[in-house]
Amino acid sequence: MVNKLSKLRELLDKNGIDAYLQPVHDEWMSEYPPACNRRVEWLCGFSGSAGLVVVTASKAAIFVDGRYTLQAAKQVSADYEVFNSADTSVQDWLFQQLGAGAKIGYDPKLYTKAMLEKFKSQNLIHTANLIDELWEDRPPAPATKIFAHDIKYSGESSQSKRGRVAEAVKKAGADAAFLSAPESVCWLLNIRARDTENTPVCLANALIDAGGNVQLYVDNARIDEETRSHLGDIKILPPDSLSGEICTFSQKKLLLDLQTASVFIGNLCEEAGVKIVQGQDPCVLFKAVKNPIEIAGIRNSHIVDGVAVVKLLCWLGGQENISELEVVDKILEFRKRNDLFVEPSFDTIAGSGEHGAIVHYRATQESNRILQQGELFLLDSGGQYQSGTTDITRTIAIGKPSAEHKKRFTQVLKGHIALAMAIFPEGTQGSQLDALARQYLWRDAVDYDHGTGHGVGCFLGVHEGPQSISKRAGGAALAAGMVVSNEPGYYKAGEYGIRIENLVTVVEKTTGENSKKFLGFETITCAPIDVNLIDTSLLTEAEINWLNNYHDWVKTELTPLLDAQERKWLEFYVRKI
Amino acid sequence: MVNKLSKLRELLDKNGIDAYLQPVHDEWMSEYPPACNRRVEWLCGFSGSAGLVVVTASKAAIFVDGRYTLQAAKQVSADYEVFNSADTSVQDWLFQQLGAGAKIGYDPKLYTKAMLEKFKSQNLIHTANLIDELWEDRPPAPATKIFAHDIKYSGESSQSKRGRVAEAVKKAGADAAFLSAPESVCWLLNIRARDTENTPVCLANALIDAGGNVQLYVDNARIDEETRSHLGDIKILPPDSLSGEICTFSQKKLLLDLQTASVFIGNLCEEAGVKIVQGQDPCVLFKAVKNPIEIAGIRNSHIVDGVAVVKLLCWLGGQENISELEVVDKILEFRKRNDLFVEPSFDTIAGSGEHGAIVHYRATQESNRILQQGELFLLDSGGQYQSGTTDITRTIAIGKPSAEHKKRFTQVLKGHIALAMAIFPEGTQGSQLDALARQYLWRDAVDYDHGTGHGVGCFLGVHEGPQSISKRAGGAALAAGMVVSNEPGYYKAGEYGIRIENLVTVVEKTTGENSKKFLGFETITCAPIDVNLIDTSLLTEAEINWLNNYHDWVKTELTPLLDAQERKWLEFYVRKI
Repeated sequence: MVNKLSKLRELLDKNGIDAYLQPVHDEWMSEYPPACNRRVEWLCGFSGSAGLVVVTASKAAIFVDGRYTLQAAKQVSADYEVFNSADTSVQDWLFQQLGAGAKIGYDPKLYTKAMLEKFKSQNLIHTANLIDELWEDRPPAPATKIFAHDIKYSGESSQSKRGRVAEAVKKAGADAAFLSAPESVCWLLNIRARDTENTPVCLANALIDAGGNVQLYVDNARIDEETRSHLGDIKILPPDSLSGEICTFSQKKLLLDLQTASVFIGNLCEEAGVKIVQGQDPCVLFKAVKNPIEIAGIRNSHIVDGVAVVKLLCWLGGQENISELEVVDKILEFRKRNDLFVEPSFDTIAGSGEHGAIVHYRATQESNRILQQGELFLLDSGGQYQSGTTDITRTIAIGKPSAEHKKRFTQVLKGHIALAMAIFPEGTQGSQLDALARQYLWRDAVDYDHGTGHGVGCFLGVHEGPQSISKRAGGAALAAGMVVSNEPGYYKAGEYGIRIENLVTVVEKTTGENSKKFLGFETITCAPIDVNLIDTSLLTEAEINWLNNYHDWVKTELTPLLDAQERKWLEFYVRKI
Repeated sequence: MVNKLSKLRELLDKNGIDAYLQPVHDEWMSEYPPACNRRVEWLCGFSGSAGLVVVTASKAAIFVDGRYTLQAAKQVSADYEVFNSADTSVQDWLFQQLGAGAKIGYDPKLYTKAMLEKFKSQNLIHTANLIDELWEDRPPAPATKIFAHDIKYSGESSQSKRGRVAEAVKKAGADAAFLSAPESVCWLLNIRARDTENTPVCLANALIDAGGNVQLYVDNARIDEETRSHLGDIKILPPDSLSGEICTFSQKKLLLDLQTASVFIGNLCEEAGVKIVQGQDPCVLFKAVKNPIEIAGIRNSHIVDGVAVVKLLCWLGGQENISELEVVDKILEFRKRNDLFVEPSFDTIAGSGEHGAIVHYRATQESNRILQQGELFLLDSGGQYQSGTTDITRTIAIGKPSAEHKKRFTQVLKGHIALAMAIFPEGTQGSQLDALARQYLWRDAVDYDHGTGHGVGCFLGVHEGPQSISKRAGGAALAAGMVVSNEPGYYKAGEYGIRIENLVTVVEKTTGENSKKFLGFETITCAPIDVNLIDTSLLTEAEINWLNNYHDWVKTELTPLLDAQERKWLEFYVRKI
């Protein structure tokens, strides 16, 4: 480690900079960077999903959020100071260490313009990625086979999608759009790959012009004959030719989403005289609104995923002294039984007792814990099926729950149901509905420190925009065909965690006066909710009806797909309340 | 009229412009422009509160919103085309008439930068105000006596306020702030005047530096000895010296709120080399959060205002064939009986039957209508009391209401109560709570086309920011001490309107985990709600309790202030449901 640090400091000197910034995220802004891009882990050993390392000539520090302070302290050497970024800002620390006007080096491929806003009082200097210069045994970039996402799942030909995107590019007044997000590229071309864990994407950029012509920047060797034929007249170009190609847009107008495009691309455009049209990635909104075939596939994925969850819960009910890691393995085993299952859609969160209160808990050999009587067990997991992506959280009472467990679970459930039953006019954003899910907890002066819902892709990212249901406004209005999670929770640090998560689709419910359309949600996650945790006296008749109807549907859908023992178990588990 | 138009066209020619823009609003961006600033009314006769006149060499047009299309058509001559700005945009019309690149003249004192955004594809040319050049018998600018707002109502000395604002100016990194909003100036200096109707302001600007020194730009003749002494070391300067004074800030930093400051001021700063620090008017947030003495005065204003409303309702109950205008006169008569009453806080909205569905209805001799049996009557009115500003809407059944009237009224009431009872963590914005008030209407696929709540000043504007409760996010978080309205409604065009409006204060309710404060509302409007309009079967027990408790409080507060007949009336009117 010290060796790496001292070598990095030599590079600081060589580049004439006083500090270097290395964030955990990579140039794809992806949630799950491939091994070759885990630069922070290589440098200092920290394996968390978010954080920033700063190295100066005499100091090294890592800034992480509250989730990761303990983990970082354990993983990094004494050469690094560990800071909670909520308590100590990187900027203040930099100012303390180096005073005003110090030269701060950074890799412009790793930052969007917005991300650099907070450093604007510093003297920022573009550099090459200094970690990459040092990393001798760096793994190669992922180059998994690129395969077609069948039209029986995507529901729309790439040609049709390209037509719609080309219209949007025209409407934005641009000659072409640069697609920086791999999810957009994969959606547009109906392709997938396994370049990262949990999200079946091909890490690639593309350009699409106002005529619908696409250039895909990816190693040609990754494309077999079948995929080549699927791609039709798409031009395949080597990734390192992208910069040159962008320069050919000199004096032309290029649509660029500055929320996701790196400073590197922005600078390249400016230097080449490309006129940047700022706007949202033209694929994002189209991708978020699923077509009927996608919806059908997603619904089906949720049925088969519900089967896996019921098998897990039934199995769990018959066991004693089960550990968190055994559950993680078991739910994967049950999901794998379905032919369309590809991989988990994120690292399974299996938190028993106090671990349930850690929102992004991941069980390890060291942390692994036995599920104990009288405790709650929180299981948040999901699958990537070729027909759709799932994400479900259930909280289960192990043995007899306490009155407090039941009160909190019921408050969370009431919020979940309030959102599930909401009706709202077209044009409504998720932020306007977020309080519906929190209101019962708020009345008791408690809350949960995460959003209530995120968009979900179709055999793509389990977290996708532009819509969300959270305290923060500014995403897109909810529109029929979107998929979003409904996941209120409650967390008592050191004791337990509760979360009830279903995915829902946005649907048209009715048309009101002046032809105004009113939307609502249809729950598509199909798995039972633990009635042992419900204090029925706190529920209204409407809430009780909602739960009983939901369980009737779960029973109807899943029973034919279960074995005799599981059927019997489910029959009792979803008994009327 | 034609004469005015042809003279205006001569000025277009003289100024070398192809069109001239004259909006209804004035240089104070005030809701109630004084006579001298009613330029649109002088030019074409239109007296509505919002709109824009555009005159070219051959055409003249007025663009108004849906509220005013009929009124405008009636008031303006055939020389003007009347457009609903929602259907026809001014920009499109200008482009049609004049093509691209035409020179559009405007008075930079009447526009903020944001207001001009929509014209950015035109060739905008600053001019003097061409109406002012033509208007020979223009009334003089209002110059009412400036008087102190007593500390027994304001609750904080101007010196203390200036200290807080100076800190904010410093914190923003500015040398001084320009206060463009008269309400801010009046709040800061604890002064008032009667320059406009309904809002007791002195139309004046001020500068405050980071040391707390203030320059007030107002005619010295308006300040008597007493007010002079109240103002202490405030420097009084003639309004026309403002431009010169701003130029003395050359190379210094001036805090400017571009939401309210005109393009004229912005340009002046740029030309003089003044460095503009963009930020919110430093008085706005302080003004919105009322101190305990203000709250006490505001509460008291609402009690005496409730007395006036009860007297009105009791009187109304004993009459037949009463007209809207009679009610407008009567409520004013009852309010005037209180010594602290100064004037209405806005033009009373007294809408019977179909007039109730016109959100900003104002009864005139022509529109005046008798309150009829079987109809609803909507009365939205308020008072400027020296101790506070009120704003209340009640909807009253005249005779027997229909089942539909009752269903809609009860849905609106349920929303009103849901908001009144809401508990939410510090940091919550009104937009997060807005859906609570709409949810019961939404379930029936109906909605109302206005915000649910606006901030209210203390013996100042009846509409003030930065907080609001509406679909639109982006205001300030609700904070203890703020006053805001709670006014859901429902409007059936051509038939009836319903609105239930109380003012509430934001209060701390409780402290939760991690010392997180939870806020809620305390209703301060003190007047009965018409129980004849309630379908009790649609209410929950909690809602019934809320209403009964509210009515108990109304009875307790008001009974001692009523005569025997009114007491008896109130006793029955607020009977338990």
